[in-house]
Amino acid sequence: MTRDAGPTDSIVDVAGVSVGHATIADGGLQTGVTAVLPHAGNLFRDKAPAACRVFNGFGKSVGLLQVEELGVVESPILLSNTFAMSACVDGALDLLLAENPDIARETGSANVVALECNDGYLSDMRRRAVTREHVAEAIRLARSGSFAREASLRIGAGGPSAGAFARGSVGAGRGMSCYGLKGGIGTASRVALADGRPYTVGTLTLTNFGRLSDFVVHGRLLGKEIEALGGPAAARIRAAAIDGSGVGSPGDGSVIVVLTTDAPLDSRQLRRLCMRAASGLARTGAVIGGGSGELALAFSTAYTVPHDPPPGGGPLPRATLHEDLLDPLFRAATDCVEAAVLDSLYSAETVVGRDGHERVALSELGLG
Amino acid sequence: MTRDAGPTDSIVDVAGVSVGHATIADGGLQTGVTAVLPHAGNLFRDKAPAACRVFNGFGKSVGLLQVEELGVVESPILLSNTFAMSACVDGALDLLLAENPDIARETGSANVVALECNDGYLSDMRRRAVTREHVAEAIRLARSGSFAREASLRIGAGGPSAGAFARGSVGAGRGMSCYGLKGGIGTASRVALADGRPYTVGTLTLTNFGRLSDFVVHGRLLGKEIEALGGPAAARIRAAAIDGSGVGSPGDGSVIVVLTTDAPLDSRQLRRLCMRAASGLARTGAVIGGGSGELALAFSTAYTVPHDPPPGGGPLPRATLHEDLLDPLFRAATDCVEAAVLDSLYSAETVVGRDGHERVALSELGLG
Amino acid sequence: MTRDAGPTDSIVDVAGVSVGHATIADGGLQTGVTAVLPHAGNLFRDKAPAACRVFNGFGKSVGLLQVEELGVVESPILLSNTFAMSACVDGALDLLLAENPDIARETGSANVVALECNDGYLSDMRRRAVTREHVAEAIRLARSGSFAREASLRIGAGGPSAGAFARGSVGAGRGMSCYGLKGGIGTASRVALADGRPYTVGTLTLTNFGRLSDFVVHGRLLGKEIEALGGPAAARIRAAAIDGSGVGSPGDGSVIVVLTTDAPLDSRQLRRLCMRAASGLARTGAVIGGGSGELALAFSTAYTVPHDPPPGGGPLPRATLHEDLLDPLFRAATDCVEAAVLDSLYSAETVVGRDGHERVALSELGLG
Amino acid sequence: MTRDAGPTDSIVDVAGVSVGHATIADGGLQTGVTAVLPHAGNLFRDKAPAACRVFNGFGKSVGLLQVEELGVVESPILLSNTFAMSACVDGALDLLLAENPDIARETGSANVVALECNDGYLSDMRRRAVTREHVAEAIRLARSGSFAREASLRIGAGGPSAGAFARGSVGAGRGMSCYGLKGGIGTASRVALADGRPYTVGTLTLTNFGRLSDFVVHGRLLGKEIEALGGPAAARIRAAAIDGSGVGSPGDGSVIVVLTTDAPLDSRQLRRLCMRAASGLARTGAVIGGGSGELALAFSTAYTVPHDPPPGGGPLPRATLHEDLLDPLFRAATDCVEAAVLDSLYSAETVVGRDGHERVALSELGLG
Repeated sequence: MTRDAGPTDSIVDVAGVSVGHATIADGGLQTGVTAVLPHAGNLFRDKAPAACRVFNGFGKSVGLLQVEELGVVESPILLSNTFAMSACVDGALDLLLAENPDIARETGSANVVALECNDGYLSDMRRRAVTREHVAEAIRLARSGSFAREASLRIGAGGPSAGAFARGSVGAGRGMSCYGLKGGIGTASRVALADGRPYTVGTLTLTNFGRLSDFVVHGRLLGKEIEALGGPAAARIRAAAIDGSGVGSPGDGSVIVVLTTDAPLDSRQLRRLCMRAASGLARTGAVIGGGSGELALAFSTAYTVPHDPPPGGGPLPRATLHEDLLDPLFRAATDCVEAAVLDSLYSAETVVGRDGHERVALSELGLG
Repeated sequence: MTRDAGPTDSIVDVAGVSVGHATIADGGLQTGVTAVLPHAGNLFRDKAPAACRVFNGFGKSVGLLQVEELGVVESPILLSNTFAMSACVDGALDLLLAENPDIARETGSANVVALECNDGYLSDMRRRAVTREHVAEAIRLARSGSFAREASLRIGAGGPSAGAFARGSVGAGRGMSCYGLKGGIGTASRVALADGRPYTVGTLTLTNFGRLSDFVVHGRLLGKEIEALGGPAAARIRAAAIDGSGVGSPGDGSVIVVLTTDAPLDSRQLRRLCMRAASGLARTGAVIGGGSGELALAFSTAYTVPHDPPPGGGPLPRATLHEDLLDPLFRAATDCVEAAVLDSLYSAETVVGRDGHERVALSELGLG
Repeated sequence: MTRDAGPTDSIVDVAGVSVGHATIADGGLQTGVTAVLPHAGNLFRDKAPAACRVFNGFGKSVGLLQVEELGVVESPILLSNTFAMSACVDGALDLLLAENPDIARETGSANVVALECNDGYLSDMRRRAVTREHVAEAIRLARSGSFAREASLRIGAGGPSAGAFARGSVGAGRGMSCYGLKGGIGTASRVALADGRPYTVGTLTLTNFGRLSDFVVHGRLLGKEIEALGGPAAARIRAAAIDGSGVGSPGDGSVIVVLTTDAPLDSRQLRRLCMRAASGLARTGAVIGGGSGELALAFSTAYTVPHDPPPGGGPLPRATLHEDLLDPLFRAATDCVEAAVLDSLYSAETVVGRDGHERVALSELGLG
Repeated sequence: MTRDAGPTDSIVDVAGVSVGHATIADGGLQTGVTAVLPHAGNLFRDKAPAACRVFNGFGKSVGLLQVEELGVVESPILLSNTFAMSACVDGALDLLLAENPDIARETGSANVVALECNDGYLSDMRRRAVTREHVAEAIRLARSGSFAREASLRIGAGGPSAGAFARGSVGAGRGMSCYGLKGGIGTASRVALADGRPYTVGTLTLTNFGRLSDFVVHGRLLGKEIEALGGPAAARIRAAAIDGSGVGSPGDGSVIVVLTTDAPLDSRQLRRLCMRAASGLARTGAVIGGGSGELALAFSTAYTVPHDPPPGGGPLPRATLHEDLLDPLFRAATDCVEAAVLDSLYSAETVVGRDGHERVALSELGLG
């Protein structure tokens, strides 16, 4: 674990945030849903200040239009495969409608944020296996806090540590590929001193991009090393890598970065935070392929935005950090995202899926 | 009909474009789907150059991220209610996957564009009545060209004309409200001279915005006149208008503008065309409410963008109008959108829906 | 004056805001500078929360990049002709550097906002007559509050009223044309009830766009009336109108909208306010020509953003209106901008400039 | 030199592009201007297709508004210090007006693109030493092609090579700092196979960002090595580095990336190319400081866009690469930008400027 990481080096180090997965691992279906909750309460009533930034818009993520306009997230943040966006929206609406009988009655509609990568290499995306029940399950697990507290080895990122929830080939990450290896869910956190006190920045990143030869770990050209490596695991990686990281042309794929912080930032500042994810991705070798859907979504847990105006009237009190004090948070975001990409790779397990396609886990190589 | 309109004064005056509706009119469910096809062929293989522009992003429309990045539409353009976006995506994917077996196999995924307004005042949106079958039906009708060629009276917009397809309280427009009156689907076209030859600009507009008192017809403050009008129809309008145009606070609501032209424009130029929709809306009294989802999507039929690179290699030949020649098209877009908003109101029929809520058709007032 | 306007129906109804002009009226040079100050103090030390929105980016305005990123204005807001942007920046820097010896020493640089329209039809823009001294003069006059409190007749906008400062053919408006008539500086204010208390929205608008035939006053097609009018003034207008509104092709020209409010809005909300300017422009007949630079800049006077972090640390306290309460302000912005365009036309005096080019004042027509 | 670089590994490997510098090196004034010309002809008449993308908008660059709207550059691209933007605009206008007597007469105005970084640490920016004459000189030198063809050592980037023009502490780069070292002008090119034929991508990058400890060369943490290095040069670097890279807070600074290619891309595609600069910057350790102005501007030399519509009418013929073929160009852009940052550092010479401030050249350290 890195020196300045939070207690679990994961997104749940930002107090109140929780994560849940529903995983489908069934032959040619290797996919799932991951839910990130800004808080455990009613998100529609108490929205999270938020923003997003798109690095490459080859993607089908939904809900970002309203995030940009209103600067809030009012639903669970859902991650899944490209063709599961409908199921994510429907599943989240089930919950939102059940808990808020005034939606589409006394008040307006609700905006669901669902973000996607294409896992079609390992999973038969055409069968659209993810259902609203999977979505409900991921949200339920996130809420209950009953996520697996499994010990998971982190190699290379500073030694073993106890992750707060399952990462790697789980949830939305089940079928994802990264740098020709098995990718998926990664997470990290950093504690940064800003304005004289510690704030935490955390990320959950869904990795599904890149060619093996581009893969870099803290400056080490690990991808090229693996290309030259002997042994059966490396051979299997190379065999799969010729298909590229996605379904189609090499370089395709995507990456979704969810960032959060307990620092009091407004949506404009959160949008600035999002930009710094691009540097973190690049450190691991990312080059932003033309067919990649790459974007970051950030929210703050420092305050919530109420759905209804305050009963007594008056402006909403808010406090935000002075702009000059953001650099430590920006740096933390970059560091987090780099670490989360590596975490996704080091945490993943090998998956064999559709048509016998295989993505080999980095951990199989026994590299240190 | 306006002097410089095309033969049907509708979006299908732009050759190749077609429209289909699936309408649900069943007590508390008054909603539907409208499909606009840039051409009758395989849109995934031959994409339409496109762009969009958001005036107020309080909306849940999907697919725009990729339109902005890649400058193309590769699916039917679907319009429906807010909670039907999932059904639209799933219904369009059914078609796209069936017709393109390489999707999520040899090639990447497909991006569905679905645009929405909130029809919750007249229709019980919480029941999510629109299914992928409705979507398939709307697309099928658009493709077959078997849309109703009903004669429909246009009052005030220059006299009666034969519309090319049903407008008003049909398809996605079934449950929509505009200026406290019954809104819905409107359409118009204009022929503009640019670069020495006639080009056609057409629009299909889904209207669901505005307060009665704001409604203006060619400078005439018709909304205020109606507020002062005697007679039972006017009284029913006023009774409904106090609920505002949407479900919640007055001023909510939305409007979706689909623009098209046979002029050879690239996606940057089409984005510029979109902006001019805002002027057309404003001419009818629109003020862009804070809770309104307002956006325009534009595509050109002058050429298509092939999914695959040309077999023999080489750049794609393309021709685009010189920038200085766009003004007549911009003006045509503004004129079209104004006319289409009025068309939606003059074409609509009264609808009674959820909880006995009623939106009275402007035609009931017998105004000239 | 309109019922719900502020005391002077001008931008200075928003407390603290001031305006100053430097006017050049010398044969072929008919141009100038207008300065708008969010407050009379040191703007670099106490910045105004701000945002902007571009409707058509055919323009050379400067400083908007940083306004978008940081959400503040830290200089006088300067308006002038296209080729005077350099003089505006230099003139404002003179002031900013003199008052802030730490700039480019202990602290960073300063961002000047300067906004432009092309007045080349009436003024010989190639001679670049505006100097930093003119800029200094406009700022000095704005600060001193010694602006002319001349009584100026407003025809058609509700009767005569006492304007707070000179409008029409003054300052940056000296050489501008609007709807084939003499345009220039217009202003207006509206008091709107939001969150249970009155807030003021004000605008200063620089008008330089449109064709005579498009001109509409509260629904009356005044432009077309003038085209059909007898008498020498109308004949002179028509003679000039064939040159279009700008130098080159008809439809060129531009419009700059500066909006302000004492309502506590953050920069995201101010950006939303800007969008509503487009509706106000359209009400007067604007169609957003392809060669038009059209944009809005908005700032709030409810609070300032300090250049330096607070000495004792801690987040900046801020209060912002709940999103649902913004509609009255949005509507006020639309109304203001419509009124300001008309004000610019009704306040202007006829100007003869470069090569004998003439723009006739609307007031010459004696219309009521 | 890298295997796949062009003949000079510089931006002028893209045929037609030229570069000129005017350098001021006079005690407390260490600054200058660099001009990049897309071609040697009349840029106003034959514009270069272009686009830009802002990574962090803490900057005062001018002209980008119109580049975004119209997708072209119509002036020399000028780089200089923050307070020299006015001189750049005026100097370029001198040229544009002289060569195009129709500007502000029969045709509209002209848009100058000028991009800046803050060199206030080494140069007394408050004195605003850059004049329009310097700008004219830089343009003249670029046009004449009489730029110094000095042989310049490239250390670390693959061995010595003959640069096409002066880099490092020249022109706009004279006073810039990068990673606590002397930065400035860097350049590189890459030849990429796309669509079955070689295309060249080139960049000129103005570096003025980063902390010493962040500096990475191809994965090697050179910045941290230097922090630990003995010897007088390293000591001088460390002494200066505590001031940070810019004037004010550490992390401030900026970077401007100018990209070009002979591949036929339209402005939307060029905007996509710009995004890839961010990855190249990040590879060298960049983290996008909050006070950094970071942006990329890209243009294509494959075709030009005529100012006037073609005399005979008809759309402009254009050919653009199929979207699926862009990845090699994207990758080349990333590689170029990384190489150009390093080139700026390896080419720079030590500069002592304002108040004795010093930035030590990397070459003084004798690292290999």
